[in-house]
Amino acid sequence: MTINIGIIGAGRIGRIHAENIATQVQGASAFAIADTHLPAAQETAAKLGIPNVSDTHRDMLANPDVHAVAICSITDTHAQYIIEAAQAGKHIFCEKPIDYNLARIDEALAAVEKAGVKLQIGFNRRFDPNFCYAREVITSGQIGEPHLIRITSRDPEPAPMEHLQHSAGLLMETTIHDFDMVRFLMDSPVTEIYAAASVLVAPYYADFGHVDTAMTMLRFESGALGVIDNSYGAVYGYDQRAEVLGPKGAVSTDNQTANRTVLNDANGIHSPNPLYFFPERYANAYAIEMQAFVDAITNDTPVPVTGADGRAPVVMALAALKSIKENRPVKLSEFDL
Amino acid sequence: MTINIGIIGAGRIGRIHAENIATQVQGASAFAIADTHLPAAQETAAKLGIPNVSDTHRDMLANPDVHAVAICSITDTHAQYIIEAAQAGKHIFCEKPIDYNLARIDEALAAVEKAGVKLQIGFNRRFDPNFCYAREVITSGQIGEPHLIRITSRDPEPAPMEHLQHSAGLLMETTIHDFDMVRFLMDSPVTEIYAAASVLVAPYYADFGHVDTAMTMLRFESGALGVIDNSYGAVYGYDQRAEVLGPKGAVSTDNQTANRTVLNDANGIHSPNPLYFFPERYANAYAIEMQAFVDAITNDTPVPVTGADGRAPVVMALAALKSIKENRPVKLSEFDL
Amino acid sequence: MTINIGIIGAGRIGRIHAENIATQVQGASAFAIADTHLPAAQETAAKLGIPNVSDTHRDMLANPDVHAVAICSITDTHAQYIIEAAQAGKHIFCEKPIDYNLARIDEALAAVEKAGVKLQIGFNRRFDPNFCYAREVITSGQIGEPHLIRITSRDPEPAPMEHLQHSAGLLMETTIHDFDMVRFLMDSPVTEIYAAASVLVAPYYADFGHVDTAMTMLRFESGALGVIDNSYGAVYGYDQRAEVLGPKGAVSTDNQTANRTVLNDANGIHSPNPLYFFPERYANAYAIEMQAFVDAITNDTPVPVTGADGRAPVVMALAALKSIKENRPVKLSEFDL
Amino acid sequence: MTINIGIIGAGRIGRIHAENIATQVQGASAFAIADTHLPAAQETAAKLGIPNVSDTHRDMLANPDVHAVAICSITDTHAQYIIEAAQAGKHIFCEKPIDYNLARIDEALAAVEKAGVKLQIGFNRRFDPNFCYAREVITSGQIGEPHLIRITSRDPEPAPMEHLQHSAGLLMETTIHDFDMVRFLMDSPVTEIYAAASVLVAPYYADFGHVDTAMTMLRFESGALGVIDNSYGAVYGYDQRAEVLGPKGAVSTDNQTANRTVLNDANGIHSPNPLYFFPERYANAYAIEMQAFVDAITNDTPVPVTGADGRAPVVMALAALKSIKENRPVKLSEFDL
Repeated sequence: MTINIGIIGAGRIGRIHAENIATQVQGASAFAIADTHLPAAQETAAKLGIPNVSDTHRDMLANPDVHAVAICSITDTHAQYIIEAAQAGKHIFCEKPIDYNLARIDEALAAVEKAGVKLQIGFNRRFDPNFCYAREVITSGQIGEPHLIRITSRDPEPAPMEHLQHSAGLLMETTIHDFDMVRFLMDSPVTEIYAAASVLVAPYYADFGHVDTAMTMLRFESGALGVIDNSYGAVYGYDQRAEVLGPKGAVSTDNQTANRTVLNDANGIHSPNPLYFFPERYANAYAIEMQAFVDAITNDTPVPVTGADGRAPVVMALAALKSIKENRPVKLSEFDL
Repeated sequence: MTINIGIIGAGRIGRIHAENIATQVQGASAFAIADTHLPAAQETAAKLGIPNVSDTHRDMLANPDVHAVAICSITDTHAQYIIEAAQAGKHIFCEKPIDYNLARIDEALAAVEKAGVKLQIGFNRRFDPNFCYAREVITSGQIGEPHLIRITSRDPEPAPMEHLQHSAGLLMETTIHDFDMVRFLMDSPVTEIYAAASVLVAPYYADFGHVDTAMTMLRFESGALGVIDNSYGAVYGYDQRAEVLGPKGAVSTDNQTANRTVLNDANGIHSPNPLYFFPERYANAYAIEMQAFVDAITNDTPVPVTGADGRAPVVMALAALKSIKENRPVKLSEFDL
Repeated sequence: MTINIGIIGAGRIGRIHAENIATQVQGASAFAIADTHLPAAQETAAKLGIPNVSDTHRDMLANPDVHAVAICSITDTHAQYIIEAAQAGKHIFCEKPIDYNLARIDEALAAVEKAGVKLQIGFNRRFDPNFCYAREVITSGQIGEPHLIRITSRDPEPAPMEHLQHSAGLLMETTIHDFDMVRFLMDSPVTEIYAAASVLVAPYYADFGHVDTAMTMLRFESGALGVIDNSYGAVYGYDQRAEVLGPKGAVSTDNQTANRTVLNDANGIHSPNPLYFFPERYANAYAIEMQAFVDAITNDTPVPVTGADGRAPVVMALAALKSIKENRPVKLSEFDL
Repeated sequence: MTINIGIIGAGRIGRIHAENIATQVQGASAFAIADTHLPAAQETAAKLGIPNVSDTHRDMLANPDVHAVAICSITDTHAQYIIEAAQAGKHIFCEKPIDYNLARIDEALAAVEKAGVKLQIGFNRRFDPNFCYAREVITSGQIGEPHLIRITSRDPEPAPMEHLQHSAGLLMETTIHDFDMVRFLMDSPVTEIYAAASVLVAPYYADFGHVDTAMTMLRFESGALGVIDNSYGAVYGYDQRAEVLGPKGAVSTDNQTANRTVLNDANGIHSPNPLYFFPERYANAYAIEMQAFVDAITNDTPVPVTGADGRAPVVMALAALKSIKENRPVKLSEFDL
């Protein structure tokens, strides 16, 4: 049976998922698309041959031939759409984060629970072959129980000024991926977070109360320690690395590049930069995560990234934000875990 | 307009092209498939939704809705099918080599010329991002006029014994790709070839008069020198590299790996092997070459790999075979260029 | 004129310096050696042909032919020996740290100041070709004003239990090198430190109130952020890396290995581990730093690592220790800067 | 007992050996130096404190306190000096090649044999840690019996015009090292050689009948195949690599660089070039080979590179030169083996 999927939101990430569903994912069909800005939905529908187009997600929720939705709209709408989709009996793929508010997240997860539908959160990096293999090395015991973890997560450029008004900020939009990666690679829970942040790349970030540079330290229940460094100014490309040290060794991931061609000239040895940004670096990961969602529906098996997996990094981001505000280490137990 | 393509041959390479046409190539449709062993054609057709299936290529040649064919059958049939397809007015993508016989190749190319259809030969490596970028570095003058070229082209395993009876041998099946790569990267023509070969990997190769290991030296008109090394026993994976030295520097390509994850343990630093074989390494290249073929038809522009490009490496392979037989350097001018 | 140097202390680091002075350093002579355990001094003297041997440093201080001393004894004695040597008019090379007590350090520096002799502190990593080149890249403006710095500094094994009683601990013995490296690579001063530490590698560290794993976050006056990660359990070898990100790029240093030979087999690509520990990794650096000390005497130019450079990392280590104890970020201004 | 060594020839390589003997080699003394141009000998003697200086090697041969000589004079003199030194009962280290003439080599080796002194030939690359480790990987069976070998050996610049008149040419001066490396890494003997050469880097080479670019193919008795590529125009630095493929894997050596520091900027990833030329790349190897010579004398054990090891690559170079001249593969059996 083909899983008919309706895509809610025809922005950048919505188009990525729509195209993967239409061309790469086995056992699924890009069946409907909705965007409050109708021309955006129409354009993507035309390009990919999506038969049902609307300016509201309600049409696809009302359509009994739609089996699942992919929520790719702005974050403010995620919780509401999850609730509506659950009530309509649709399986749900939702982009991260579910919401910035824990009560609102819990309301959405309760609706999913009640409806008995599947919910997968879009932490795409878990499907990147580099991080997958690093996790495999760790869980197979090749480095032993982790002692240290370092995550580097840097964007090649800051967001343009006009995006900042509606931005939830670096910690909630970018570091949240790294908090998830920490949970993916480490089996001990984080207990305490200390974070610091600056505006160093784009001065206009300060005008919106935002930061473009951050460093976050983590303590784990096991005694392990971790750090995440973030910047919106890595001009050499999207820098996405992780390294975990244990008593038997260390595993680390390097960046992907467009090719492995090297030029040696009188000035040195030159090789290509990391892939520029997330659409290039995580092209595979986006396709693999959607395939996993479709497979979980088809085979009625658990999704690989659950609602609880979607909630936990939000708690970590809230702790980090509190730490920055109060300049002190913040225990996760200060929040409703 | 969508280019309707008929695939002739549903073996390994036929299935790769059929799947790319069906799922990746823009502006094309996997419209028909034929295989003398009908079930093979039927299976691929079913999997990819190809509407027209037959046990003979003649059906698709007779179908006015077929605009182009992709010849993926055994080499013996290539020239004949090219002639028939040309006479039927179809554009032609043909796997390498066109034939082992120069007269037969010339007959096929004459038919294409007369019919005025497009013919593209399947030298997929020209579309690999590594070799493409190396060529770009060279043609843009970054290393100057080449002095030396080294090509490594090693398979991870020998062919099974049952394939050897119909094999044209290492020089004609494998080195032919490297001869094409030499032409792709160097702008001076090869004038003389010296080759040596051995059976070192799989003793049963000797029973069929075949070799599994070879080294081929090349002289270029410019005075540049080159070497190709081939083996069917690179147990660490498909080893596909090139290096060109010029007066201003050198460019070299490394292998692609499944990921960039590294394990450091007490025994050393360990990273993943090259992708295992051609379907993995050249997955992208196959899709890009077919897109290029379709684009050339759609826009009525020249194909990137012509019939002449298909013929030249056959001459080089014939010279290399003669060199091995007579243990002497052989000038290409001994053949009908 | 040859600078006659007296080495105080014939332990591991004393022997390294004695051998470099005897065999590598130009313009210097290994003229005297003293160790309270006389046979140790005698053994090194015999091996290297050092003419003057004693069980007390006082002999070399009294010898007018001695121009300079290299203090390589245990840390407790550094300040006292600096004072005595200064009063004797000898130039001084002193191993780090000067002392763990700021008042004691100030007393020693005052004696040096008064005597007008040169004092160079043994922060050897500043002379390692990797870190030197990284600094050159930064100071020449190639990455712009730094935003982030990450330092990894891991030992391949913990100290044996019998050494722990007299140890000043990881932060004061190991991280102190990293604090110096931070000062070497960044031109903005550190203003605040937050550190966390654990016992994860060798449980007996806890019995002595010591730690074997630590992570330290740094804020700089410029707004830049930094992190140092330390472990005594990097079984793959001495892991000594730094990375600095600025608005125009990033510079990073990798580890040195015994050779650049790579084995590809069916299990992957294998290369040699980092050099095992500091005598191997910093062999060059030790020779270069001693040459720099001798050159500063010979040419009467400033030493490259001053007494103030020796004091500053001690303040940072004290701040880190206070941070660990009180679990809060500690401003350096809480100390007598 | 200290081995007193007399150095014959105070040119570039003579100074390298003199300095190593004076400062690095254990158990040896730089005891005498001679150069027909006396000021050259005097300058090196002064710098290194060598007590005996002369404008003729005869003085050191007549000195009973000299135990061994290091012949670093021009190649024309090697055989003669070997004979005289052997007759004087001195152990002999001689720079490669012994001579270009096999009869002359045999005369020298006979004198050594008769005198019962030790003779070690200066094939320094055998002592480079990269090639040593590659050999260890091979001889320990980790890649199995070799099938293919590739050697790259490129100088960063051609010789100046004034040196060419007395040069023996690329094959005899440079490739001879590679022929030795082939013998060092492969346990099967070379049976046949095919070589080609060009003038591409420095046109004035043609005026002296010399070449600056060459490629040499080798057949081994085992059926293995090999290639050596040489150029005098590798502007990115001294390029010294080897790669050996066997049925269980491949081993390869990369170049050494001044440091492992990497710059990532908007244009790519940049790392340092290979060490510029032989004095930098083989600094360690020269010291280790001389230590090995001294150790062989001290312990009365066989030298690691014998007279026969010095003769064999000359035969290979002669075969390669004949191959170039006659443009055909040349069997080594055409020479007096």
